[in-house]
Order: sequence, then structure tokens, then C-alpha cells
Amino acid sequence: MSTDAPGRGPDGQGQVRQIDLHRSRVEWLRGEGRLSDVVLSSRVRLARNLAGFPFPNRASRSDRVCVLDLCRDRILNAGLAERMLWIDLHHAAPIDRSLLVERHLISKQHAKGKLGVASGGPEEPRGVAVAMPHEQLSIMVNEEDHLRIQVMRTGFDLADALREADEVDDKIERRLDYAFSPRFGYLTACPTNVGTGARFSVMLHLPALKMANEIDKVKRAAGDMALAIRGFYGEGSEAVGDFYQLSNQTTLGKAEHFLLHDMEHEIIPRVVEYERLARRQLVERRGDLVADQAYRALGVLRHARLMSSEEAMECLSRVRLGAVLGLMPGIDHQHVTHLMLVIQPAHLQRLAGREMNQAERRAGRADLLRRELASVT
Amino acid sequence: MSTDAPGRGPDGQGQVRQIDLHRSRVEWLRGEGRLSDVVLSSRVRLARNLAGFPFPNRASRSDRVCVLDLCRDRILNAGLAERMLWIDLHHAAPIDRSLLVERHLISKQHAKGKLGVASGGPEEPRGVAVAMPHEQLSIMVNEEDHLRIQVMRTGFDLADALREADEVDDKIERRLDYAFSPRFGYLTACPTNVGTGARFSVMLHLPALKMANEIDKVKRAAGDMALAIRGFYGEGSEAVGDFYQLSNQTTLGKAEHFLLHDMEHEIIPRVVEYERLARRQLVERRGDLVADQAYRALGVLRHARLMSSEEAMECLSRVRLGAVLGLMPGIDHQHVTHLMLVIQPAHLQRLAGREMNQAERRAGRADLLRRELASVT
Repeated sequence: MSTDAPGRGPDGQGQVRQIDLHRSRVEWLRGEGRLSDVVLSSRVRLARNLAGFPFPNRASRSDRVCVLDLCRDRILNAGLAERMLWIDLHHAAPIDRSLLVERHLISKQHAKGKLGVASGGPEEPRGVAVAMPHEQLSIMVNEEDHLRIQVMRTGFDLADALREADEVDDKIERRLDYAFSPRFGYLTACPTNVGTGARFSVMLHLPALKMANEIDKVKRAAGDMALAIRGFYGEGSEAVGDFYQLSNQTTLGKAEHFLLHDMEHEIIPRVVEYERLARRQLVERRGDLVADQAYRALGVLRHARLMSSEEAMECLSRVRLGAVLGLMPGIDHQHVTHLMLVIQPAHLQRLAGREMNQAERRAGRADLLRRELASVT
Repeated sequence: MSTDAPGRGPDGQGQVRQIDLHRSRVEWLRGEGRLSDVVLSSRVRLARNLAGFPFPNRASRSDRVCVLDLCRDRILNAGLAERMLWIDLHHAAPIDRSLLVERHLISKQHAKGKLGVASGGPEEPRGVAVAMPHEQLSIMVNEEDHLRIQVMRTGFDLADALREADEVDDKIERRLDYAFSPRFGYLTACPTNVGTGARFSVMLHLPALKMANEIDKVKRAAGDMALAIRGFYGEGSEAVGDFYQLSNQTTLGKAEHFLLHDMEHEIIPRVVEYERLARRQLVERRGDLVADQAYRALGVLRHARLMSSEEAMECLSRVRLGAVLGLMPGIDHQHVTHLMLVIQPAHLQRLAGREMNQAERRAGRADLLRRELASVT
């Protein structure tokens, strides 16, 4: 086992470059696993804080530096993965931070680094550890909480994600003293996370429910079950390409396994069944229309000279639906899913090796898609 | 010289089958000639009536039969072309009539065959003669007037179209007695055609003026000059695919050569210059956008599984613009123009060899376009 820890030096730049944008098969984008026709990926996130330090939004700069140094050291030496990559985000270039957001390794807030009233002045000291090369595990340090342990799985597998998250949690806890109350459980900066500190999320692809105008029903039902629906890029992001992230809202007073059981055996399978039913009905009633839309989307992707990321996501979503439904034999839906990542602005610029303004990105994105899809039949 | 005259028998069916839909290079769709970047085709139409017979809308059935027999015989024996095809429209299948409309060989009204108060009962006796194989000349018998001589040219060449129309007119006049008034000129069923009986039309492709929202200006200017703007299929048809047919409205009191001079040297060149300017501005300001739209249209044409004729025309129009502007090196704009014809409902069904309802046509049209454009790069 080796650990990469050049971030210990004064400069954390360049670490992100170790992520191979061309070849890496990112866990959450593999497009395999249980119910993967509807569930793109599963995620478990544990919020943890260190005893004896104020929460990040209340912490002084020196507190934060201290927490960051401590966590970086313990995480990199906890034997969490074959290889852990460490990135000091306060030293990382904006485009590298965006790249990590696009890969779902850090939150948008963590990329920005503005936490609360106590913040100001130079960049907040903060970082992220990423398990390489599959990025199935990432640990944010000094986000809203001192530690945010995040484990991803392709398809629908919250149980296995929780298993790994618990292992990671245990290994870290052996080296760090967590803020814990016998009455409330794990203490967190935001009360909604107190208790288990666990959030379960699944990324759902719901194009048929969208076409059937049934998304609002799903949203209402989710609200009734205290679930939040977010977009492809989490909190505050819009649903693009018919992808919806469904997650539990509160953790206080519920044991992890109850939360897990609800998500794993009740809620998600029901939504999946609902989407599958809508797909079957679509195909039965207007299979020609679904194929038409999927192929048109492919046609646009293969021919356009200018393309926004929103439109690309919409087109890729339609192609993915067509592929998953078996209507497009020549299409590898894992390739389609991979394209959803590389058409994002930071990926696009990193792949091109240069900064691009919005107009250049639109042209570059269209070029990339044409190249990638040229050989598809 | 040979003439085809099986229409003289009791049954005119089957004649339309002699038109080769696959190979014929129809004159008005050749996409060549003067100003052909903007002017698809030019047309001269002469309205003529026989002396001693009521106009068709006032004629009895036996009058019409008499006119038809007379005209058919004279036309087929006037040496008008290497080979003239004759079709008795009252015996032709509806799909064959539609096919002739789509080829701009007869008007919609002539296909329908309902003329006026005197009509009723069985199909109106009426027909059309077509010069084969290029269809540059067609003569409708018993349309609004007894004779409608129509000559087409690719690109902008009203003068040559008029030259041939006059030749044809002279040859027919040698064999038939026209209704002519020394004071008014040629007499016609509708007063707007009295005089020369000539109508000059050009089919213009004005996508840039459309994009620049300048079409209304063209329409106003045309109205001021007593010109009518019609759609791709003449009177009462909508402009599809940014094609507009511009023609003079009145013929009374104007000599042919004045009319021709106005159209040939004043009006049309001005509209063409206006469209060209709009294209130059488009390319200078947003060349990337024009290419993007053209390629997207091509992408849709090459991938869709269902397509209406309206959408096909719009897409083909955009591709034609891209090709004419030199933005799409792999595209032969003559091929694109040819496709505008074969995607029309009757052509589609004749090419498929079977009747199709609207849904089947949408699928069949998309299939045809995919096949035709598969090898385009």
C-alpha cells in the first residue's frame, strides 16, 4: 500500500492532474449493477466532526489549519485504499476544483470554500482525499463538517456503500476523536445531520416519468417520505438530462439500518418500478416515438457544431433511454454515461489542455461529441 | 419524333407510371443556372382559351369533353417535344394526381377537378400533357382556362422560359383557334389573367431573410409592386422550408416584355441581392451558428425515425443553405433539392409501391431520408 501525500508541502497544486480523464472508469459512472437501467449510482455520506474543535463555520483560521493537518495525516495513513490522492483545495486552481465537482468528489460549496460568518480573507484551508483510481471513496475535510466521508457505488447498492463507509469511518475513528453525544449521536454543524450523520442518495434516471409528466407526483411522494430531490450536481442544482438525486433529509433519531432499509427496500424500488412501468407504457404505446427521439438526439450529438452542456445532457439522456430500452443496438450506454462527465466545462477544458470561454466550450463540446460518437452505427 | 397518345382510349390510367421517380432530373429541381443559390426555378405560364367554347367554369360536360379531345389531339401532334406524355386526370388515381401536383406539373385545383357552379356529377374531363423526360413543359387542359401552358427552367431564366412558352403557344395556335380580343388581348376565365395571359414566377429560397425576420419586408415590397408571394405548392399553400414563389398578379394592359423586364431586371435581382446580403451578414456575424443549424438539420435527417414533410422541408432547407454557403463540403445541394420532391406524400408512396397512412408516411419518409443521406460525410 502506498499513500500519496505531496499535499503536505506548501503547495497542493497539480494533484488533480493525477486523475486520468481519458481512461478512468469512475465507480459512479460505470452504469452497471442492480437496477442500473434506472439507478445510475448510489452514495452514502457520513458527516463527522472532531472533538475539541469548533465546527468549521465557527472555527478560526488556525483551528481549521489544525483540523486540516490532522485529518490529512490520519486519512492518508489509515489504510483506506490502495492509493489515496490528497488535494489541498485552497491551493488548487479553480478549474481543478470544478473538475472535482463535476466528478462528484466534492460539493460546490467545498469548491467555493466560503462557509459562514467566520470566513473571509484568504482561501479557507480545506481539502479532499480521493481513493484512486476508481474514486469510489472521497473524504472532504473542512466542508460544512470537519469530515464528510462519501462512498459511491454504480447502480443500486446502498448497503455495500454503507459497509465501506462504516469501515472507513471505523479506521478514521481509531486515529481521531469524533464529536459524539450519547444522547444525540454524532454531532454535526447542521442539526439535520445529527445522529447517524448518514445521508443515502441515489441518482435516478427518470426520462419516462418526465415524458409522462409524472415527476411532480414523484416529488410529492418523496416529500411525504421526508426525502429530498436534487439535480445532477446536488443541492441547488437543476435536474438536467432527467437525472434526479433522491436522498433522505433527516438523520436524527433514526438508526442507519432503518434509514437504509427504507431506501433500499421501500422507497427506491418503488420509484424504479414506477419509472419502468412508464417506460413499458411508452414503448407499448409509442415505441416508434421513443426510438425517434433517441435517434434524433443521437443525430444532434453527432452533427451539431455548437452545444451547451444542458442540451448535451438532455440528448445523452434520451440516447441512454433508447440504449437501455434496447432500441439502439449500436449504442453502448456506458459510453453515453461517460460522455455526460467529459462534456462538463472543466473536463472539456482539461481534455483540450486550455482555458475556454463559453462560446469556445460550446464549439469544443460539439467537437468532442462528434469525435466520440463518429463510429457509432 | 414520337408522341404518346394512349390517353385517347377510354382509360388514361397508368400513364403517370411512365415518370421515372428515381432517375429523372426534373428541370425545375436541377438546382443549376443563374442565381441558383437563391432562385430554385423560374416558370412562365400562359393562359389560353379556345374560341367558340365557354370557359371551363361555365362549360357543360359535353363542351368540356369536346375541348379536351380537341386539345389532346392538337397538343400531341404539335411537335412540342421529343416525347409528350398525356394523362387524362379524370381517369387517374388520386395518388397519381397528387404526384403530378408534387412535381408542379398541375395545380391543386386541377388535381381536384372541381371548377365552379356548372360542375358536379362525375369527374370533370380534364388532362395534362407533359414533356418527357425533363418535364420542362406541361400543358393543363380544362383547368381554370382551357389551356394553361407552363414552362419551367432551373435557376433564374424567365426569358428562356418565355421563349419556349411562346414557341409552344405559336405551335398550338396554328392548330387551334384562341379566344382573343383586339382590345383586351387573350381572354381568360379570370380577369386578372386577361391580356397577355402570362404569369411569371420564380421559386426563391430565402432562409437568411427568414432568420433575420425580414420576410415581411419582402412581402410588403412585393405587394407594392403588385406581386404575389405564395408557398412551395402555389396558391393557398404555406411557405415551407423557406421557399417562396413570387409572381406577377395582373396581366391586363401590360405587354409580356414589360412584365418580363420588371421581373428579370428589377424585382427578382433586388430580392436575390437582399437575400445574399442577409446570408453574408449571417455568415460574418454567426457563421458558426449557420453551420451548426445546417449540420443539426442534417443530423436530424440522418437519424430521425419519424418525420413530417414540413419538418423534412425545413431541415432540407437548412442543409441547402449550408451547402450553398460552402459550409458543408460533403453535401451535394442538387441531391438535397431532389430529396425535397421525393419526400412528398405521393412520391413516398409510389416509391414504396404501396399506400401509406400518415403515420406510415412519417416512418417511411424518415427511412428514405436515412438511406439517401447515409453515405454523406
